[in-house]
Amino acid sequence: MPDTLHQPEYRKDPLSDAWVVIAAERNGRPEEFQELPVHRVGGPCPFCVGNEAVTPQEIISYPAAAGDRPWKVRVVPNKFPALVRCADMQPALVSKTFKNGTPSLFTSLRGHGGHEVIIESSRHAVSLTDLDDEELTYTFQAYRDRMRCLASEGPWKYVQVFKNVGAAAGSSIEHAHSQVMGLPAVPIRVAEELAHTKSYFNVVGRRLFESMVEEELAQQSRVVDQSDDFIAVCPYASRFPYETWILPRVAAPRFETSGDALVASLGRFTATIVDRLERTLKRPAYNYLLHSAPFDRSADDHYQWHLELFPRVTKPAGFEWGTGYYINPVSPEQAAQALRSA
Amino acid sequence: MPDTLHQPEYRKDPLSDAWVVIAAERNGRPEEFQELPVHRVGGPCPFCVGNEAVTPQEIISYPAAAGDRPWKVRVVPNKFPALVRCADMQPALVSKTFKNGTPSLFTSLRGHGGHEVIIESSRHAVSLTDLDDEELTYTFQAYRDRMRCLASEGPWKYVQVFKNVGAAAGSSIEHAHSQVMGLPAVPIRVAEELAHTKSYFNVVGRRLFESMVEEELAQQSRVVDQSDDFIAVCPYASRFPYETWILPRVAAPRFETSGDALVASLGRFTATIVDRLERTLKRPAYNYLLHSAPFDRSADDHYQWHLELFPRVTKPAGFEWGTGYYINPVSPEQAAQALRSA
Repeated sequence: MPDTLHQPEYRKDPLSDAWVVIAAERNGRPEEFQELPVHRVGGPCPFCVGNEAVTPQEIISYPAAAGDRPWKVRVVPNKFPALVRCADMQPALVSKTFKNGTPSLFTSLRGHGGHEVIIESSRHAVSLTDLDDEELTYTFQAYRDRMRCLASEGPWKYVQVFKNVGAAAGSSIEHAHSQVMGLPAVPIRVAEELAHTKSYFNVVGRRLFESMVEEELAQQSRVVDQSDDFIAVCPYASRFPYETWILPRVAAPRFETSGDALVASLGRFTATIVDRLERTLKRPAYNYLLHSAPFDRSADDHYQWHLELFPRVTKPAGFEWGTGYYINPVSPEQAAQALRSA
Repeated sequence: MPDTLHQPEYRKDPLSDAWVVIAAERNGRPEEFQELPVHRVGGPCPFCVGNEAVTPQEIISYPAAAGDRPWKVRVVPNKFPALVRCADMQPALVSKTFKNGTPSLFTSLRGHGGHEVIIESSRHAVSLTDLDDEELTYTFQAYRDRMRCLASEGPWKYVQVFKNVGAAAGSSIEHAHSQVMGLPAVPIRVAEELAHTKSYFNVVGRRLFESMVEEELAQQSRVVDQSDDFIAVCPYASRFPYETWILPRVAAPRFETSGDALVASLGRFTATIVDRLERTLKRPAYNYLLHSAPFDRSADDHYQWHLELFPRVTKPAGFEWGTGYYINPVSPEQAAQALRSA
């Protein structure tokens, strides 16, 4: 843990029951929260080849056993982690009392988590579409391999893989990279999806994702693209303009069980979709994330891993924060049509 | 409804059960979703005095019965509403069948809602801190009066009042304004707060907000400011850097029952807090929103209206969208200290 960080902490909001990660920089000053520029080509980039000493000790690189050949994709611990591994691996809730033995409203948990960065190229590539075929394949292999490895470590209940591209998508480093976080609990967004897919399975007797793919293919109006392994759709209730989900054709609850061929195929297909997005919207900032069933296999009968992708062209505002509803000014049907013809 | 809009529609995401408002502009083109500049001083501003004909027909203005005196605060229907009033006021769920009588996964509801704008000054004021005392008072009176009026109209279960300042906070018009939306259901974020405050009331026998104010005043570390009527705190599990909540000292579930003096006092106190924020962070973009108990009074024994305010200095990214957890790089204790000394 770098010495510029406090021990991060999970705190529970008594009003909403939501968990927040407080990961305060010790010397953080208000001026630092003005709009930060994204690291640009030209300055020393910590992720470019030759600057390996700037990152923490490498976890793994690709191709494996590269010998004298240079690395193509590299996984390192996050130098400024939002969560850090705790020595005891199972930290307890910190309960306090307020007065006269009344329990405090405020409970916390040490910020236990693994936070890694996947550097997707040794060159100063920026978007997923700047990667060559090998870099793409190794990047998506790294997603799977790190999930497998963190699953076998024991304390993690879930691993969140995600990618932020551009300042408007929350990225502070321009060089193409993704992030992987091992978490001690199944996050609330995934838990919601698990609850609804389970209840659908109990009522209808099949996976909700199978029904969704079937109905989207029958309607066609929200289908963006298809390959032998995947279909891409703008989901029926898209929260954001041009939001696109990538759904596998073959049922599989957990991404980490994917074979090499499927992982490589996902990399190529995702790059195709990002390319459609970048041609439609002139290289917008974007995020994508993988959702997968928890390691404990409790959702294996009803869940389906998938990838959710969205450009950051609108900003959630007072209405969204106040209500939890989203206002989307582009219908998914309009969005899919634009992306199809890009 | 202006003819540049489709009928807006609520759509339910079958995966998360969340509602999304699809409010598509008929001729929306991808180029329009590049970063939009905020309307600046100099161009014709639709909210400035003299341009009243540009807005839809006024709903009410302040001071009441102004006669020959000019208006100070003005309420108009939103010219580009995200939700519109439906003639039958109680539109039904649109259920479709997919094939062989199987129900479709995709359900929708016409986008029934009232969407109004409160123009907070006849001058080209920008932030809440640019308003004079009269404008402040009338603005917060308008919040209350519109909630009262919409409550009496019948079909609305909830009214969301909110304010967006600056492009990063989702605002497209610079002139100081707030928005009011009548909704046919209690939104999910409010429902979560209602559930937790109810369960707290059932277990502990008092309002969660009373306990929260008591414990915050005892600890002091997150208290930003106090007046006779209100305290301002950076909440224990702040989602955003410098997030600040304004909590009334006297229990009241619904904002629309507030008297003139309390409403004026809230306007002055909120402006003081925004001023602290603007001096700490150099006039950042910000949002605030009012949370209040639903009109049906079902939460009157356990809820408390309050105001939530946050500058937009960080951007939710892949981790936040994927997990539903927030990472906050400034502890609420650091934030409160900076705001206190501003």
